[in-house]
Amino acid sequence: MLTELNAGDLQALKEWLKSRTQTIGADIYGAAAGIIDQVRAQGDQALKDLTKQFDKVDIDTLRLTEAQIDELAAQADPAFVKALKGARDNILEFHEAQKQNSFLLNRPNGVYLGQRVIPLDAVGIYVPGGRAQYPSSVLMNAIPAKVAGVKRIVMMTPPAANGLVEPNIACAARLAGITELYVTGGAQAIAAMAYGTESIAPVDKIVGPGNAFVAAAKKLVYGTVDIDMIAGPSEILVIADSGADPAFVAADLLSQAEHDPLASAMFVTTDAGLIRKVKEELQKQSAFLPKKDIVEASLANYGRSILCESMEQCLEIANQIAPEHLELMVENPMNWLGQVRHAGSVFLGYYTCESIGDYYGGTNHVLPTSGTAKFSSALGVDAFVKRSSFLHYTKEQLEQDSAAIQTLATAEHLQAHATAAAIRTPSITADDQKARAAADAKEPQ
Amino acid sequence: MLTELNAGDLQALKEWLKSRTQTIGADIYGAAAGIIDQVRAQGDQALKDLTKQFDKVDIDTLRLTEAQIDELAAQADPAFVKALKGARDNILEFHEAQKQNSFLLNRPNGVYLGQRVIPLDAVGIYVPGGRAQYPSSVLMNAIPAKVAGVKRIVMMTPPAANGLVEPNIACAARLAGITELYVTGGAQAIAAMAYGTESIAPVDKIVGPGNAFVAAAKKLVYGTVDIDMIAGPSEILVIADSGADPAFVAADLLSQAEHDPLASAMFVTTDAGLIRKVKEELQKQSAFLPKKDIVEASLANYGRSILCESMEQCLEIANQIAPEHLELMVENPMNWLGQVRHAGSVFLGYYTCESIGDYYGGTNHVLPTSGTAKFSSALGVDAFVKRSSFLHYTKEQLEQDSAAIQTLATAEHLQAHATAAAIRTPSITADDQKARAAADAKEPQ
Repeated sequence: MLTELNAGDLQALKEWLKSRTQTIGADIYGAAAGIIDQVRAQGDQALKDLTKQFDKVDIDTLRLTEAQIDELAAQADPAFVKALKGARDNILEFHEAQKQNSFLLNRPNGVYLGQRVIPLDAVGIYVPGGRAQYPSSVLMNAIPAKVAGVKRIVMMTPPAANGLVEPNIACAARLAGITELYVTGGAQAIAAMAYGTESIAPVDKIVGPGNAFVAAAKKLVYGTVDIDMIAGPSEILVIADSGADPAFVAADLLSQAEHDPLASAMFVTTDAGLIRKVKEELQKQSAFLPKKDIVEASLANYGRSILCESMEQCLEIANQIAPEHLELMVENPMNWLGQVRHAGSVFLGYYTCESIGDYYGGTNHVLPTSGTAKFSSALGVDAFVKRSSFLHYTKEQLEQDSAAIQTLATAEHLQAHATAAAIRTPSITADDQKARAAADAKEPQ
Repeated sequence: MLTELNAGDLQALKEWLKSRTQTIGADIYGAAAGIIDQVRAQGDQALKDLTKQFDKVDIDTLRLTEAQIDELAAQADPAFVKALKGARDNILEFHEAQKQNSFLLNRPNGVYLGQRVIPLDAVGIYVPGGRAQYPSSVLMNAIPAKVAGVKRIVMMTPPAANGLVEPNIACAARLAGITELYVTGGAQAIAAMAYGTESIAPVDKIVGPGNAFVAAAKKLVYGTVDIDMIAGPSEILVIADSGADPAFVAADLLSQAEHDPLASAMFVTTDAGLIRKVKEELQKQSAFLPKKDIVEASLANYGRSILCESMEQCLEIANQIAPEHLELMVENPMNWLGQVRHAGSVFLGYYTCESIGDYYGGTNHVLPTSGTAKFSSALGVDAFVKRSSFLHYTKEQLEQDSAAIQTLATAEHLQAHATAAAIRTPSITADDQKARAAADAKEPQ
C-alpha cells in the first residue's frame, strides 16, 4: 500500500505534498462574502435566519447560559470526562511553560527600554459541528488563549438538532473555562465574531478549524481581526530503526491515513526488511478499521516508504519534507533530535504514538502542515499575545545621542525626524557627529 | 492644521484610519505574477532582463562580492558610519533580550516533553532602491534575524546607476553582518528569493518594505515562503499633559506627517491651551521643512486633536486607536504605561521623540499599523524562529494513559488513533477508563 520511493524522487514528493492544499473556489468566497454582508447588515436576525437555512434548526437565544453548559456537560460519559480532564491538565502544564515574560533593560542616564507581553483582549474559537465532533480541538485552541491571559474567550459552533450543543463539546468548553458560547456555525459565526452583532461583541482574533465556507470567511475578515493558519491536509513521517515493532509503525501510519484521503503517511528507514513487514501489518490492521476506505485511498495517494542508507539520510529527508508530525521510532531518539530542523511536533521512541500528542500528552495538535513547518509553528500561547515595546530617554542621554540621530535622519532625507531630536537639544547639531567621527579617526588604533 | 475631534467621533476616525490602507489593484497583481513566472522560467537571465527594463541598468554579476561591499561601505561619511554603529549596538542589545529559550518538562515514568526554538534556515531581506534609501531599515530587518540565529541572510536591492549599491546601504549591510547581497529589485527580487535561480538559493521567509509591485509579489509567493506584514501608512498618537513643551509635541507630529500624505498624526490632551499652542508651533515649524507639501497634506487629511476630560480618557482613546507609535509626553509616564493595552511601540516622557526609536534607541521600527497593534507586534526575533515541540512516552506511562487516549479517540470516531495506543498496551482497553471513572465516583468526596 506504500509506494516505494528513492531519495531522488524527493523533489516530486515535496511538490505533491504541497499540491494537496485545496484552493478555495470563487463561488465559495462569493457565498461567504454574501453571508458576511448579511450578518453585518442584520446582526442577530441574520444569524438566526442563516442557522434555520443551513442547519435546519430554529434558535431563540444564540447564547447558552452557564447553567445550560453545565447541564449538557453533566450528560457526558464519566469515563470520557475523566480522560478529558487528564488531557486538560497535561495541555495546561505544557502551555504554561510557553509563557513569555516582559523585560526591562536599564542604561546609564536614566534611559530604559523593554517589551511588554500583553494578552489579546478577546479571542473567538470556532468549533465545527455535524457528525464529527472534536472536543480535543476545543482544548487545544482554548487552553493556550487562557494561559496567555485572554480575558474574553468566545466559542461558536453550529447547534445540534435540539438547538444546543453535544455533551462532549459542552464538557470540553467547561474544562477549558469557556463561558461565552453561541450556537451558530459557518461563515455567519466568523462574521459575527469579526464584526459583532447586537448580542455578540467582536473579538480580535479567530482560531479553529472549519469547512471551506468557514475558511473563506476567515480569509475575508483577516485584517479586521487576526486569524490562525488555514490548515492543509495532515501528514506524518515515521523514521524507524530495526528495533521498531512493525505493528507499531503500521498503526501510527494508519492513524494518520484515517483522517482524510488527502492525508499523507510516510515511512523512512534504513531496514529494507522492516518496510516489507510494515506493509504486511498495514494490510492486516487496516482490514479491521471502520474508516478502511479512507485509509486505503490515503495510502494509495500519499503513502510512501523510503529506504535510506543511513540515519543521517533519514533525517535529511525529514528536514526536506518538514512534516507536521515526525516520529523517531529509534533507539536513543534524543541523540537525533538535534538534527531535526523542520517538524511541527516530534514523537520520540517506540512508545510515543502520535495519538498521545493528538489527545493527551500536552503538546498542541494544531500544527503547521504541507511543509510550512520550515517557517511556522504549532498553535501556542504566542498566538494570543502581542509584544509592545517601550523606550524612555532623558535630556542627558539625548544630548549624547542627538547628533547621531540627526545624522541618520538627514541621511534618509527625513528632516522633521532630525528636528524632533534637535529641538530638544538646541546646542547639539549634526556637525557634532562629524567632530566625533573625526576625533575617533585621530585616536591611535 | 489639526482637525479638532470629539471623543464621540472616534468610531469614524478608526474607520478612516483603516481606510488609508490602499488595496493593490488587479493590474499590479497581474504584472507581479507575470514577472514571477518569468523568473521561475528563465532564472538569472530574467533578473538581468528585468533590471535592464525597469532600472535601466546592465548588470553582469548579480551578487556583490564581500570585497565590493567593504569598498562601498568605506565610501560612507565617517560621521554616518559612527552613528549607524551606535544604532546597531543598541538594536542588538534590545533584540538579544527578546530571545526565547527552548524548554524541557520531566514527568514520572521517564516521560518528558518540551519545545525547541529553532532559527529559520534562510531569510531574504528586501531593501527598496531609488532616491529614498533607508539604511536604518536594513538594520531593523536584519538584526533580529541575525540574533535569532538565522545562518543565511540574503539581501536584494535595485542597483544604483553604476550597477552597485549606495555606500550607506552597503555600510548598513556590513554592520548587520550581511554578506550575500544581490543587485536586483522589484517583484523579480521577491520571485528569486522565493523560488531561487541558478545563482540564488531560495529562502524560507522574505521581509522588508517595498512598492506596490513588491507587496503584490510578496502576497503571491506567501505559502511557498513566509512573509512579514504588508505595512500600511504610518501613524502616531501623542498624549501630552500641561508640562509638555508645545514645540516638542509639534516636532513629533511633524516627524510623522513628513512620511506620507496618508500618514496620521493625532494629538490627545486634557489641556485646551496646549492644543492652541501646538497648532501655532505646527505652523511655525512646518514652514522650514523640505517636505512641507507632504506635511501639510498629511495634517489636513489625517491630523487630529482630541480634547479629553482626564488622562484615563486619553488612554482609552489610545487603546481604541491602537496606534503604531504612542508617545506619553506626561510626568511620570511609567505610572500610565500599564493602562496601554494596544500600541506598537510606546515612547515615554518629554524627551523621547519617536525618531529616537526610529533610528537609535534599540526598539524595532517595523511596527503594526492601522489599528493592527490590537493583535500584532513589532518585527522581532520571534519572526525568525519557529517552535517545534517534542514528546517522549514510555511503556510504563502509556499503560497508565492508554485507556484515556482510547476513550478520547473513540469519542471522536478515530479508531486507528485508539489502536495506535492499544497495540502498544495489549492488556489495556477503553473499558479500563470506565472502571477508573466508576471508582472515582465511589470515592468519598
